[in-house]
Amino acid sequence: MQVSQHRLQRDIEANAAFGSIAVEKGHGRTVLTGTEADKKARAYFCEQLRDAGLTVRIDCVGNIVGRWAPESVNPTAAPVAAGSHLDSVPEGGIFDGPLGVYAALESVRAMQDADVEPIRPVEVVCFTEEEGQRFDGGLLGSAVATGEMDSETALSLEDDSGTSLESALSDIGFLGEGRLAADEWHAWLELHIEQSERLTEADISAGVVTTITGLSRCGIEITGEANHAGSTLMTNRSDAMAAGSEFVLDIEAAAGECVDTDSATAVATVGKLDVRPNAPNVIPGAVELSLDVRDIRQSSIEKIVSRAKQSLDRIETERDVTTEFDRPWNRPPVPMSDRCRTALCEAGESAEIEIRELHSGAAHDTMHVANVTDAGLLFVPSRDGISHNPLEWTDWEDCAAATQVLGGALKRLASE
Amino acid sequence: MQVSQHRLQRDIEANAAFGSIAVEKGHGRTVLTGTEADKKARAYFCEQLRDAGLTVRIDCVGNIVGRWAPESVNPTAAPVAAGSHLDSVPEGGIFDGPLGVYAALESVRAMQDADVEPIRPVEVVCFTEEEGQRFDGGLLGSAVATGEMDSETALSLEDDSGTSLESALSDIGFLGEGRLAADEWHAWLELHIEQSERLTEADISAGVVTTITGLSRCGIEITGEANHAGSTLMTNRSDAMAAGSEFVLDIEAAAGECVDTDSATAVATVGKLDVRPNAPNVIPGAVELSLDVRDIRQSSIEKIVSRAKQSLDRIETERDVTTEFDRPWNRPPVPMSDRCRTALCEAGESAEIEIRELHSGAAHDTMHVANVTDAGLLFVPSRDGISHNPLEWTDWEDCAAATQVLGGALKRLASE
Repeated sequence: MQVSQHRLQRDIEANAAFGSIAVEKGHGRTVLTGTEADKKARAYFCEQLRDAGLTVRIDCVGNIVGRWAPESVNPTAAPVAAGSHLDSVPEGGIFDGPLGVYAALESVRAMQDADVEPIRPVEVVCFTEEEGQRFDGGLLGSAVATGEMDSETALSLEDDSGTSLESALSDIGFLGEGRLAADEWHAWLELHIEQSERLTEADISAGVVTTITGLSRCGIEITGEANHAGSTLMTNRSDAMAAGSEFVLDIEAAAGECVDTDSATAVATVGKLDVRPNAPNVIPGAVELSLDVRDIRQSSIEKIVSRAKQSLDRIETERDVTTEFDRPWNRPPVPMSDRCRTALCEAGESAEIEIRELHSGAAHDTMHVANVTDAGLLFVPSRDGISHNPLEWTDWEDCAAATQVLGGALKRLASE
Repeated sequence: MQVSQHRLQRDIEANAAFGSIAVEKGHGRTVLTGTEADKKARAYFCEQLRDAGLTVRIDCVGNIVGRWAPESVNPTAAPVAAGSHLDSVPEGGIFDGPLGVYAALESVRAMQDADVEPIRPVEVVCFTEEEGQRFDGGLLGSAVATGEMDSETALSLEDDSGTSLESALSDIGFLGEGRLAADEWHAWLELHIEQSERLTEADISAGVVTTITGLSRCGIEITGEANHAGSTLMTNRSDAMAAGSEFVLDIEAAAGECVDTDSATAVATVGKLDVRPNAPNVIPGAVELSLDVRDIRQSSIEKIVSRAKQSLDRIETERDVTTEFDRPWNRPPVPMSDRCRTALCEAGESAEIEIRELHSGAAHDTMHVANVTDAGLLFVPSRDGISHNPLEWTDWEDCAAATQVLGGALKRLASE
């Protein structure tokens, strides 16, 4: 069984044309859920599914499923599924999402070419709104398919202009019926770009994920006193920005210590910081910060979050400010199933493709699916670790090699 | 000679109605140059000037001058002038600006009541666009009146919607002719709220300014690498926000040291900080910061600016970031004239009003005027140091006491 790099490349390049943007370097696209670009990307995908003889269905939140169930299949057997998403961030790259979708389809075509006779149906899946760029949140399609979110809630989400997901999907003709039920799958596999440099640095074409890191998202507000930058003496200030700066450096230090002593994979980021009133001649009266903490170990996450709270307590004591701390998100680490990891590693071995086992610091639809069935996640190198950017790139040879691993694993899982 | 608290309060309260905003506490107004509120405020002011027998002229950038030249006046003598501005920041207070304008007018009325016979004409002035909220920059009217900015440049400035100052002034009927020439004045005095707590803390009604601090405004950009907050290990980061935080704390420390060792009045502020892309799940790729450094001594300003550059050099070396430093503004400290300070202090003594000498950390139109003629600046307490805010407040008794000092000084200067 041999996947076709040619067909895979053709599909990804064809998909890259939908929502493509003019860029000086690289290949960019903007495909937000329910837009014209999304409609075209979905339509082309459905066409390719049907061309390969798959039965297409669209669920109530626009998730697309192509089902391959040749005569060899036991009609009562739980299907094996694979896929990813077709939407992008604004001015995103052409591999993040589409590679996983078309690699799954190419795996089926390669099995067909090799006359593989699976016992289980194989389903090729495109989840809706993975990036969460239009209807907030992200991982939406998989959240509904795994029961994490009910479909009514999802469909009533609105974009900035007040258009609901339901109406946007209806407008492009992709509001289907019924709910895709991921818990009915025997197993799930997703191929995705790594978005990090470990595979490129090791010059390895495929990485099998051990664990998707847990993620805590916190919101912090520090309130001092806005005052005139000229007439307020240094000794009379309650500068929220200076207090916020201490917090940022405390967080960096806490994560660094955690890396040194507990877990090399722990990360903590203050990515968003808003200053009020944010004027050159006014001492900042308040800052709002985001804190994103991730690791494969929940204990490291708890340690860093606890250090964040200690930092705020200290800053309140040492500076004349008040602080507020909120922790709206806390998703524990998600280990991938041994069965799926083994299938992927053995498929790599069969195809003589070197495999590296590594963790994922990014969340993917697989994070939801792993909560309801056995799931595996396979990475392909992304050049310089760049993603969400027109410079995102994966060599076609690497795409094909990883797809070969995906296809081999799907074949194994579908023959169990 | 006795100023009337009643008339002063009546004028300031009448002026407060123009552009007034609904607030839970305090008294707010929004009076941007060339708006309907500005038109009403200007019209009421002109009416009061004429009611008091002053001759009104409007210059080419909308500066308003009311001239009192009774028969006693030597027609060739250079006038003595006083005033401030009528515009406000959005949701500003009712005293910042109008107090100085109406205190100048009330001083003239008090001189008239007391049959004072000045040798010099007295001019009551309202400068255009002191706050710089619609047409960028600030201190605009005084910049033109002192030759700091030519009138063509000023008139061609545009607001965010592309309306020029010329067109905005023309729309409200306040585009006059000729340029007010501040260098022809014998002396200038301005009464303004302190915007700091020194007078309220000392329970003193009037402060005579020694020096307006110099001001350096710098722009800093720190560029790291935006990357995925989950998949980029702590050891692979080039976090512009963490680098920016070090800079903020270095500046705070540098100013603190300067206060301890050189000059208690030195201040440095990072008031504006913008993060790119400013998303919770993306390591900040760049931050832009403002740096505002002020002191009555240029040497302290240079010391802090030099420490800022050293900080950026160190941060470039220790972190994988690049930095850019720009210093678009550098206005040296402006000492007030001895003659004007003496006139104000002696007027206080005559009226048995205690005076405190202090510096000004805020720039005022007087900063420009002092470059072309003898100038003096008088402060009145502002409650809790609050300004640019509906909670800005000065007790009417303090307004009247300071106006008594202003009037006394004007009388002295107009009789020289």
